[in-house]
Amino acid sequence: MELKRKDLLDLESVERDEILAVLDTAKGFLDIPQRTVKKVPALRGLTVINCFYEASTRTRTSFEIASKRLSADTINFAAGASSVSKGETLLDTAKNLMAMSPDCIILRHPLSGAAHFLASKVTCHVVNAGDGTHEHPTQGLLDAFTIQENKGEFKGLKVTLVGDILHSRVARSNIQALTKLGAKVTVCGPPPLIPPYVEKLGVKVSFSLDRALEGADVVMALRVQKERMDASYFPTLREYFELYGLTSARLKKADGAVIVMHPGPMNRGVEIASELADGPRSVILDQVSNGVAVRMAVLYLLMVGRRKSETAD
Amino acid sequence: MELKRKDLLDLESVERDEILAVLDTAKGFLDIPQRTVKKVPALRGLTVINCFYEASTRTRTSFEIASKRLSADTINFAAGASSVSKGETLLDTAKNLMAMSPDCIILRHPLSGAAHFLASKVTCHVVNAGDGTHEHPTQGLLDAFTIQENKGEFKGLKVTLVGDILHSRVARSNIQALTKLGAKVTVCGPPPLIPPYVEKLGVKVSFSLDRALEGADVVMALRVQKERMDASYFPTLREYFELYGLTSARLKKADGAVIVMHPGPMNRGVEIASELADGPRSVILDQVSNGVAVRMAVLYLLMVGRRKSETAD
Amino acid sequence: MELKRKDLLDLESVERDEILAVLDTAKGFLDIPQRTVKKVPALRGLTVINCFYEASTRTRTSFEIASKRLSADTINFAAGASSVSKGETLLDTAKNLMAMSPDCIILRHPLSGAAHFLASKVTCHVVNAGDGTHEHPTQGLLDAFTIQENKGEFKGLKVTLVGDILHSRVARSNIQALTKLGAKVTVCGPPPLIPPYVEKLGVKVSFSLDRALEGADVVMALRVQKERMDASYFPTLREYFELYGLTSARLKKADGAVIVMHPGPMNRGVEIASELADGPRSVILDQVSNGVAVRMAVLYLLMVGRRKSETAD
Repeated sequence: MELKRKDLLDLESVERDEILAVLDTAKGFLDIPQRTVKKVPALRGLTVINCFYEASTRTRTSFEIASKRLSADTINFAAGASSVSKGETLLDTAKNLMAMSPDCIILRHPLSGAAHFLASKVTCHVVNAGDGTHEHPTQGLLDAFTIQENKGEFKGLKVTLVGDILHSRVARSNIQALTKLGAKVTVCGPPPLIPPYVEKLGVKVSFSLDRALEGADVVMALRVQKERMDASYFPTLREYFELYGLTSARLKKADGAVIVMHPGPMNRGVEIASELADGPRSVILDQVSNGVAVRMAVLYLLMVGRRKSETAD
Repeated sequence: MELKRKDLLDLESVERDEILAVLDTAKGFLDIPQRTVKKVPALRGLTVINCFYEASTRTRTSFEIASKRLSADTINFAAGASSVSKGETLLDTAKNLMAMSPDCIILRHPLSGAAHFLASKVTCHVVNAGDGTHEHPTQGLLDAFTIQENKGEFKGLKVTLVGDILHSRVARSNIQALTKLGAKVTVCGPPPLIPPYVEKLGVKVSFSLDRALEGADVVMALRVQKERMDASYFPTLREYFELYGLTSARLKKADGAVIVMHPGPMNRGVEIASELADGPRSVILDQVSNGVAVRMAVLYLLMVGRRKSETAD
Repeated sequence: MELKRKDLLDLESVERDEILAVLDTAKGFLDIPQRTVKKVPALRGLTVINCFYEASTRTRTSFEIASKRLSADTINFAAGASSVSKGETLLDTAKNLMAMSPDCIILRHPLSGAAHFLASKVTCHVVNAGDGTHEHPTQGLLDAFTIQENKGEFKGLKVTLVGDILHSRVARSNIQALTKLGAKVTVCGPPPLIPPYVEKLGVKVSFSLDRALEGADVVMALRVQKERMDASYFPTLREYFELYGLTSARLKKADGAVIVMHPGPMNRGVEIASELADGPRSVILDQVSNGVAVRMAVLYLLMVGRRKSETAD
């Protein structure tokens, strides 16, 4: 099993087998942090550039740790301190980075489609670390991995995503991964935050959180992205919490063994109550831990696979 | 001799023997920069995160160099480019970092107590790199190391700290280290900048610099932290210099072999005259060099000690 | 052949043989990015500090990649997140960095002469990565390398530099390198942007681009540095393009085998038309690739040369 592509740009175009290849490979990397020497030499001598045009804690750090645990050399390239401020286009920046022979560029960018554009222009591997409101494929993969670790099988699993589905690249990547893996996905949120025709992605829609939670095996609260809201999609944060905030009381509708997920960073008291975020059903920090293993798996499959096939040429 | 603790948060709770363990270990690391290959494999495969919520040149760089000379993988995490700006709490950020299995988090934070709080919530090692106006323990240790290198014994040594004692975490860590090691510490500064009851820490107080300098073996000027001054503690910088600035003329009151220290960055002409800062009695740059060795010692004692005891379990 | 100096501060003081030593050494490093493990252990255990007081993408990244491919430990020190904001002088910052025993400081600074000043104060190696409007010697070297790769010989080669010669450290370093190597250099630009007496550097001056391009083997467009323009040196960007922008039509005046260069980042449609930037005569991205090899060569010659001579002492 392998990842049969140069780049990981979205989960829409990725096949079920490839997703399972990542999950399997990640499983093998899961114990590395428990070793005395927490790294393997798989990517020694390769160069990974973290190219972040948006602020991010966990994603950049997660990719950087993943790269270093595979022994790659990592370069951080942040938009603020770069020629972006001198008005260079993404294409020129990309070509310039490419000319320095990196093996992989990890791109976060505020514009949807930026990673696809980049990947079409450079010969190195590209991993989309979130592009606008489009996709965030490694998040979708780490969420699938976390569900697999907790539930074993995807077939027939009821997964509910709650919140701002419209702007959420996390939701989009999760929908792609989970429907391919056989889960039954329901999306729930205020009507203006549910994209029209979202049912075409193979999900159910519900505007009532209570109904969406009925019998759920997995519930994922999405971040209310205040910074992305340029119109008033709902009256107040308080009202949002009352209608769509995850609470212990509401969770009683779900399956007894339900797990609670959140991609972070959390707005406690907005989309999720602290009692749930820190409670026994929460796997939110497991998502973060698994994120490192899943990103190691993606980098490994893209780069070692490619090197092997090059050797075979 | 060892450091019998998971974290280095302050020098108040550290015992004399532990301080001596750090100083002894640092002595062994002092020659590493003179070697052809300036590093040892002690922390190979371990991950150290520099988590800085305040700007800092020397401290972050010093810790990063120390980590790299011990062969650790280092990650820089600066507040500006992080989810801090998205309003995440320190606790959530900490838990998220922790979930990525770092071995040590080095924290600088504007709030006093932040490092203690963090250490109580994470299982990895925490080193306080300065928390508000509380403590800066590696600074206290590197200052003690520098004094030991120059004076040999602490017993009976007269050490004078001059300046803004009230806001200085450097002063607090020095007082803790030096009184435990047997030195006689005098603090001196404008009355509003001397904390009430500071004598309870075992130091003498003087408002006259001339008197405080009489027979001093060590004099340390503290930085006038303009950025921390939210009230007018003294009329003008010029008047401060006239009353509490260290000058060659004033230094004549001190012991002939006095050494002049400053934690940096210096305000030349405010708390110290350039002629002293760059003069033959200054050990200010030795403090910086020693800082790398002392931080290597702290990281080594916390992490290698812990690993050994884990193996023994 | 070697680089007989502690620092690389400018090309004005560097001899022809030293330039050729860098070009020869760079040639040997050119294939490293094509290897499976893209690094050599030459600088293992040495510490390189990137000290950037101005934003820069390619230069910082290029130096960082060059350092890492030589296995050095690299530290990034950016002015924004540093004690610069606390008002420390460059000298104090430099001395403090020096006290941490780096082997090399790479300095970019907005003030002309900053690298010379630094080099006179520290014992480690200093590489000028651009100082104000003075010099950017590794850019001059990588441009010379690129010309050599394409043209073989420098003797009699006609090289035309077009644009803001007055403020361009790139132009100054190129003029130094290329005239020493035997090329015939013409500078061209709007009269207010040509420094008086520039002919004394051994170059011809032309205010007409058409004339300057006649028979040119190499043409290099310089960046219109909007951020450096504090007076109106020319009416509009559009007029600039009409008079001094490089276009396919204009390039017909040049030699049939002319190569087109630009130090980047480019203002497309201002100093260069996109058709040329991306066209078959362009070697602009080769410049970037060569930059890594040339910077590896400079770091290697400064540091390994020095280490060898120290061993011989």
